[in-house]
Amino acid sequence: MLLTSLYRRISARVVARTALSTTRRTLITEALKDSPAWKLGHLNHVAIAVPDMAQASAFWRDVMQAEKVSESVPMPEHGVYTVFVELGNTKIELLHPYGDKSPIAGFLAKNKSGGIHHICLNVPDIQQALTTLRASGVQSLNDEPKTGAHGLPVVFLHPKTCGGVLVELEEHRNRC
Amino acid sequence: MLLTSLYRRISARVVARTALSTTRRTLITEALKDSPAWKLGHLNHVAIAVPDMAQASAFWRDVMQAEKVSESVPMPEHGVYTVFVELGNTKIELLHPYGDKSPIAGFLAKNKSGGIHHICLNVPDIQQALTTLRASGVQSLNDEPKTGAHGLPVVFLHPKTCGGVLVELEEHRNRC
Repeated sequence: MLLTSLYRRISARVVARTALSTTRRTLITEALKDSPAWKLGHLNHVAIAVPDMAQASAFWRDVMQAEKVSESVPMPEHGVYTVFVELGNTKIELLHPYGDKSPIAGFLAKNKSGGIHHICLNVPDIQQALTTLRASGVQSLNDEPKTGAHGLPVVFLHPKTCGGVLVELEEHRNRC
Repeated sequence: MLLTSLYRRISARVVARTALSTTRRTLITEALKDSPAWKLGHLNHVAIAVPDMAQASAFWRDVMQAEKVSESVPMPEHGVYTVFVELGNTKIELLHPYGDKSPIAGFLAKNKSGGIHHICLNVPDIQQALTTLRASGVQSLNDEPKTGAHGLPVVFLHPKTCGGVLVELEEHRNRC
């Protein structure tokens, strides 16, 4: 089982090498030596930054006919208000700035009507994921995971190391 | 059943009215008169525009450890190559320009490293959805639905009428 898993992972890297720089190839080879196997889980949510939370909530509930749209919840420690739009298989997270130092203020200054801000993906072990991702050249915005909107460990990965996409990881040990 | 449904929809609109302009209020009230009820379905995929498809596929398969990453498929009629990254509950669609007139060329010119391009949501009846959405002030990029990457009717909604988000609708009659 371990050998099969190792073979699959090494084979995948061989294919990947054709598309990666020499530096990243070396980093991935190094990471392979010690890193345990893990698999990417479900899409937890797609986050949309919005300039007006009441209007955005009404849009998704009444115009787009979403089955369930939560109340707005202030998250002072993250500098945002959040609303979750239930889609059945995953969620949309609406984000609006809370306070003067909101991490989404810059995004909304550039995208005045709002826009897609990030995607959040579940992982079974966030520390294990961070270790192997960092060894592959992926950078995180925080040194350590923080507690996210669902009371679970989360960490953001730098978009410049994820093909221009801001990726949040959320730890879900018991389900993907 | 019909009365309950009508009551729920009218109540929702009353809440929504506080956040909508007078023009949109009137449009929604008008739309309510004749429009049948429908519900938004699952998130079909999140689309990411990428400047290098081989590199992006390798990133999601080998660095992000996605369980399944498809081959690249040319879609000349849509001006893109597509790769689907399976996440268990939904998919990421990687998009790379095909030909000189790709609809994602402008996006990649502005976002050279790539980025999140649109979200695709399932609806049970695309014509019914379009009728009520248009009556609520939502504009579509095409007059009529086209056949999308999965051989099903799709239509794109204008981001300026969807809070800055480019939204694709895909018709799934038998499942959401």
